[in-house]
Amino acid sequence: MSLQPDCIFCKIIKGEIPSQKILENEKVLAFRDLHPQAKEHILVIPKFHITSVAHLEKSEMAVMEDLYRATLEIADKMGFRNTGFRTVVNTGQEGGQTVFHLHMHILAGSQVGPRFG
Amino acid sequence: MSLQPDCIFCKIIKGEIPSQKILENEKVLAFRDLHPQAKEHILVIPKFHITSVAHLEKSEMAVMEDLYRATLEIADKMGFRNTGFRTVVNTGQEGGQTVFHLHMHILAGSQVGPRFG
Repeated sequence: MSLQPDCIFCKIIKGEIPSQKILENEKVLAFRDLHPQAKEHILVIPKFHITSVAHLEKSEMAVMEDLYRATLEIADKMGFRNTGFRTVVNTGQEGGQTVFHLHMHILAGSQVGPRFG
Repeated sequence: MSLQPDCIFCKIIKGEIPSQKILENEKVLAFRDLHPQAKEHILVIPKFHITSVAHLEKSEMAVMEDLYRATLEIADKMGFRNTGFRTVVNTGQEGGQTVFHLHMHILAGSQVGPRFG
């Protein structure tokens, strides 16, 4: 349950790199993606370093529940719980993961496309 | 915690509509998507009717953990935990949801595309 010095998202958690924060609680941090694929594109990350979903131990699976709890809190706050949103988690190379700190994408505020593969 | 007569995924759970099952336990069912967007395209659904992520009560959030537990079990079984995979949940109209029984897409077995919005 610690942070890693060379991880860009750990640096955002520590405040060493600035971010446009949307929500923060004791378990997760949410901030705007720098390269949005929708009108609203938010990343939600656990506040400890874990490389990806594939690296989660069975005892750590509640992280996924934490990310979705935060997602619904953000959806309520930003007004897209009823209009809709897409949540995406990329895991590993073939899954398109580019930053190796587990993160969930939330896409909202405009119609998402029919393809997501 | 019940099924709905007119829901296509509830009918799959009851066996009234056939599916290519990948995994089933007391909480979730996983089966192949009929219109794959990747070499392996699997849907994981809770075995009770819930319309979408936006409809989850706070007391029901563990459903998301159940879906990810099943995802990792499937990834181990099918051999893509290390190569990678993308997980997507579409919620509501702007989120691209087309079947209104909460479901998670797992895309694996080939390189996913860079765009998912």
